[in-house]
Amino acid sequence: MKALQYVEVGKAPEVREVPTPEPGPGEVRLKVTAAGACHSDSFVMGLSEEQYTAFGYPLPMTLGHEGVGVVDALGDGVRAVELGESVAVYGPQGCGRCKPCAEGSENYCPHAAAMGITPPGLGTDGAMAEYMIVRDPRLLIPLGDLDPVENVALTDAGLTPYHAVKGSMEFLVPGSVAVVIGVGGLGHVAVQMLRAMTSATVVALDVSESKLEFAREVGAHHAFLSDENAAQRIAEEVGPGPAAAVFDFVTNDKVLDIVYALSGPRTDMVLVGAGAVERTVGLLGQPFGSRVRAPYWGTRPELMEVFELARTGQVTVETERFSLHDGPEAYRKLHDGELRGRAVVVP
Amino acid sequence: MKALQYVEVGKAPEVREVPTPEPGPGEVRLKVTAAGACHSDSFVMGLSEEQYTAFGYPLPMTLGHEGVGVVDALGDGVRAVELGESVAVYGPQGCGRCKPCAEGSENYCPHAAAMGITPPGLGTDGAMAEYMIVRDPRLLIPLGDLDPVENVALTDAGLTPYHAVKGSMEFLVPGSVAVVIGVGGLGHVAVQMLRAMTSATVVALDVSESKLEFAREVGAHHAFLSDENAAQRIAEEVGPGPAAAVFDFVTNDKVLDIVYALSGPRTDMVLVGAGAVERTVGLLGQPFGSRVRAPYWGTRPELMEVFELARTGQVTVETERFSLHDGPEAYRKLHDGELRGRAVVVP
Amino acid sequence: MKALQYVEVGKAPEVREVPTPEPGPGEVRLKVTAAGACHSDSFVMGLSEEQYTAFGYPLPMTLGHEGVGVVDALGDGVRAVELGESVAVYGPQGCGRCKPCAEGSENYCPHAAAMGITPPGLGTDGAMAEYMIVRDPRLLIPLGDLDPVENVALTDAGLTPYHAVKGSMEFLVPGSVAVVIGVGGLGHVAVQMLRAMTSATVVALDVSESKLEFAREVGAHHAFLSDENAAQRIAEEVGPGPAAAVFDFVTNDKVLDIVYALSGPRTDMVLVGAGAVERTVGLLGQPFGSRVRAPYWGTRPELMEVFELARTGQVTVETERFSLHDGPEAYRKLHDGELRGRAVVVP
Amino acid sequence: MKALQYVEVGKAPEVREVPTPEPGPGEVRLKVTAAGACHSDSFVMGLSEEQYTAFGYPLPMTLGHEGVGVVDALGDGVRAVELGESVAVYGPQGCGRCKPCAEGSENYCPHAAAMGITPPGLGTDGAMAEYMIVRDPRLLIPLGDLDPVENVALTDAGLTPYHAVKGSMEFLVPGSVAVVIGVGGLGHVAVQMLRAMTSATVVALDVSESKLEFAREVGAHHAFLSDENAAQRIAEEVGPGPAAAVFDFVTNDKVLDIVYALSGPRTDMVLVGAGAVERTVGLLGQPFGSRVRAPYWGTRPELMEVFELARTGQVTVETERFSLHDGPEAYRKLHDGELRGRAVVVP
Repeated sequence: MKALQYVEVGKAPEVREVPTPEPGPGEVRLKVTAAGACHSDSFVMGLSEEQYTAFGYPLPMTLGHEGVGVVDALGDGVRAVELGESVAVYGPQGCGRCKPCAEGSENYCPHAAAMGITPPGLGTDGAMAEYMIVRDPRLLIPLGDLDPVENVALTDAGLTPYHAVKGSMEFLVPGSVAVVIGVGGLGHVAVQMLRAMTSATVVALDVSESKLEFAREVGAHHAFLSDENAAQRIAEEVGPGPAAAVFDFVTNDKVLDIVYALSGPRTDMVLVGAGAVERTVGLLGQPFGSRVRAPYWGTRPELMEVFELARTGQVTVETERFSLHDGPEAYRKLHDGELRGRAVVVP
Repeated sequence: MKALQYVEVGKAPEVREVPTPEPGPGEVRLKVTAAGACHSDSFVMGLSEEQYTAFGYPLPMTLGHEGVGVVDALGDGVRAVELGESVAVYGPQGCGRCKPCAEGSENYCPHAAAMGITPPGLGTDGAMAEYMIVRDPRLLIPLGDLDPVENVALTDAGLTPYHAVKGSMEFLVPGSVAVVIGVGGLGHVAVQMLRAMTSATVVALDVSESKLEFAREVGAHHAFLSDENAAQRIAEEVGPGPAAAVFDFVTNDKVLDIVYALSGPRTDMVLVGAGAVERTVGLLGQPFGSRVRAPYWGTRPELMEVFELARTGQVTVETERFSLHDGPEAYRKLHDGELRGRAVVVP
Repeated sequence: MKALQYVEVGKAPEVREVPTPEPGPGEVRLKVTAAGACHSDSFVMGLSEEQYTAFGYPLPMTLGHEGVGVVDALGDGVRAVELGESVAVYGPQGCGRCKPCAEGSENYCPHAAAMGITPPGLGTDGAMAEYMIVRDPRLLIPLGDLDPVENVALTDAGLTPYHAVKGSMEFLVPGSVAVVIGVGGLGHVAVQMLRAMTSATVVALDVSESKLEFAREVGAHHAFLSDENAAQRIAEEVGPGPAAAVFDFVTNDKVLDIVYALSGPRTDMVLVGAGAVERTVGLLGQPFGSRVRAPYWGTRPELMEVFELARTGQVTVETERFSLHDGPEAYRKLHDGELRGRAVVVP
Repeated sequence: MKALQYVEVGKAPEVREVPTPEPGPGEVRLKVTAAGACHSDSFVMGLSEEQYTAFGYPLPMTLGHEGVGVVDALGDGVRAVELGESVAVYGPQGCGRCKPCAEGSENYCPHAAAMGITPPGLGTDGAMAEYMIVRDPRLLIPLGDLDPVENVALTDAGLTPYHAVKGSMEFLVPGSVAVVIGVGGLGHVAVQMLRAMTSATVVALDVSESKLEFAREVGAHHAFLSDENAAQRIAEEVGPGPAAAVFDFVTNDKVLDIVYALSGPRTDMVLVGAGAVERTVGLLGQPFGSRVRAPYWGTRPELMEVFELARTGQVTVETERFSLHDGPEAYRKLHDGELRGRAVVVP
């Protein structure tokens, strides 16, 4: 079969011919119907050789941690899914037996790393191929009649903002303000979720007018440039008082300045971007009662709820479609900021 | 192997020789180390032939929905557990794929019944045998070095009150009063859980002085007879004002009178006993802001938390030990109210 | 001044000339800008002499528990509000000192009744007059520039459904179904709140096609007749599976049949109508994990959140305007079901 | 009357003769029965002249933000309390009218500072005097028959840890580990609260063996030195895996190292000490799903719950008693770390 693989550190990924995998006992093989490209893939392909080795990822590695497919072959003992079923792959896989896993919060499994369990495409061969192996049927979420291509990105670009927003629901009461910083693949879905699930006033911040226009299209009540005047403009045009929650999909030093400037008593500062920034914390170092959270991906039942939002038409992902052959080009456009929404590869 | 089976409606169960079962694909066989006897078994064996048929249970049926054992044989494709591991069986099994199941709330799976999935011992052969089959390894909770005999009853007599209490936690703040009605197999565990997990004042009600003494032994701050003066005595000796939560492990007409008499604004009335009673509901029919709940058994992650309570010595089950041969006698004593705590059969 | 008073049990209320009241120490006098008429007023005026006496209400009594006004005079020691401020009166007033009151949940104050504290218009002179006295400035919620006439009804017809919905928020996740029974003064606001605050599919039930049309206008996704086929039609046209929450604004025997028919595992049955109905409760008498709640009115901070929904245009009350002189006619139309939405009296 | 006042920046406080204050309209005068000395007082008296001015505090200023007393005189219009009543003063006072205040969360009032409303003893004359003025009766919490001297410190040293713990309750399930760093005035109360309200294993860390002994006396399951080996010792002797919550009552650079070392997926890092420390935050800078919170003091209803813990004997404050005349000596001992528990001044 054909697979889009990361072959050599620092080089662009390549489409290669590899053996079609066979499912082992308890495993499931999918015929992939769509796979999404994500900034975390770019992040991984931007690591130095030393860093990449530290992550323990193999080479070559098939990319793609957003995947949907049709059940194509069952390993020994698998009874829970049926051949031909259209399913999505839950990415942040855990050990399956501990308490977080029993709750469906496999994204916080404390055992996965030590057991060598990694998401497809991030340590294990992923979805950018004609076929993929999934280690257990519990990780397959029924898609029903949802379109695979239009919805594959929900497995990360939908699930991650959903998990972030869900953790702030208690604050997002009528009269509250929710700020989304970064209206890209994840952020433009966050805006829709906030509109669908809460009565908060939704403010989006980004670096270009075209992004602000995009934010308004997907439902933001207000959209401003994410510069040093952002907090001031929000105070003037949206109202005084701190944001109830700030969802930061970027997480760099400049953005954290904005996050802190928008925060006050009990603000929920939610850092979702793949970054690490030095900031002052503590009673005299952050607003009274505020909290700085770093949610990671999302839970298994949350992914089911994300698909319900799609099913009821409350969330759609802006997607650009590529063939597997054009997968490398999808990553180039992603890297160069030329995409609006999400790149989806259709094998 | 030997198994304690319900063979004929209306007759006492019998120990019989039956074929040792083989695990099918994806299934697991346990060598049973202990099995608990429960009032629901008595309830089932008290049904008329017509009612029993309506439940759709087979005959003969091996009893026992509280079971622990050692992993003894693996069906095809099973990788998640290891031979020799000591495990408990999670009873209220669901389909394993829907959202309640993904959250571990298999006890509320809406598909199980239609799929013919029933708890062991309540529709499927149960734990009162030398060996038992469990349909999926996810249903096996590691026991670690917990003693099987002393802790088997936690799978129901522990999990059920835990689930009931957990649903009332927000009300059980300092200064609140929690009332437990019926200090039997489940109730005496509820008392311990309330003491371990909350700062509430715990009041127990039951029908005999020996039961009240038992309640005090396991930690109740107060214990009174569950007669028509119960509410009055609580008002006098514990304090005025309604209970924050009332946990009823009996659920008959007389007990519901007490539940309502103890309730006021925002009381959580938690009906756990296997009963159905007519009562007035609605804004003018129950206290303002109160709620009448009927929790069923408990969730998979909750069972793990129950074992943690045992591991830290905060909950113990009073048990009386029987051989498999004496299993029928265990049920007789249970039925006749001659047990203090829980009857456990050791095959 | 003029006041609309209930003067004699069983007779229609009358507009009478009464002395303009003076605020005592700590009290505030409002010049009333609008007052809403509510089914509970009709309920009270429908009581027999014996029942009315049992409630302990005075005669004559100025009607109106929904009131807004302008601060007109301050009793001794009042500093928290200013003359000329536009405010709404929080109705379900408590003692102000106990824990429920400290949390703003004065609607569940256990001391109010014994202290003779009653809502205006329901035991104390109410808002259907040119002036009214409010016992403490904490009970006055700033209206800002919200229109008094259009928003007065939010103090009950907004606050009551808001409190009901808020208590079910955890269940109203994507993919869930919320059912509203009775699309009158409260129900048509409930529909809007469910749409604004949740992603649930909202289904409305009522007895006439015009009501169903009204329900669709205010945002219901589906609307059906509340007859014996309602559950079946919902199953067919909305989808199988129980409702996550049923909000019953009627609460009589027939409606409870529907509530139970729509319920399944973990359904939140929320009874808001002023009724009392016999129903079966308990593990074998109601769906597993379901609960029957009877929320009463709402809290002080919730009323502030309701006004935020109005301020952001997410909730509006359908109102019909009457002069104080026509107040008796407003109650007649209310009683005879001739109103769509809420009758508001403007003194 | 006599009052212990801070008179000159950098000098020890002095006992001075000042006029007995009169309550204005809506205010209440207490005859003080006890006042607690707190590290925040030392913090304020350690500020430079410039810093002190920036805080906007007056000079002289009567110290004491922990106060209890007997209602002694009522300003005009006050009806809610009675002469002779024993009450505690809620310290973190807000505007009284906004939504946080309506919920009782006056500690997060966004208006207080701008309105010049400050806690007694921290900007306004406090409780270290024979009499004090309280601005509104809602701020007086009934003490009932609780001993004023033994319980006065609960108004801060009880309320602050209570609020911190309450925000982490959802994490403190059976099997979880809660770590308390700093077993001083607040920390030794936190240990007791964790034992009373949760089933968590409680681990205390501090700098001296005598403090560790104290921690064990008040209920800590384990106590270790808070040095660079702390995390390692906890892993060995308590068990592997991260803490569910870490309560830091110190908040300096060294302690934050320990906080981070003890944290893992979903750990609640609760920084209560009056400090500000630079730390790395964000998805790659803090454990997945963890949060860094900075709760401030506590709410009005929470203070009531704290007194219930005292009333039921579940929390006691270790106190050392001083006369008003010896107040300066109390602050010296506090500053020099010579106290075990809390210094209380009895006027």
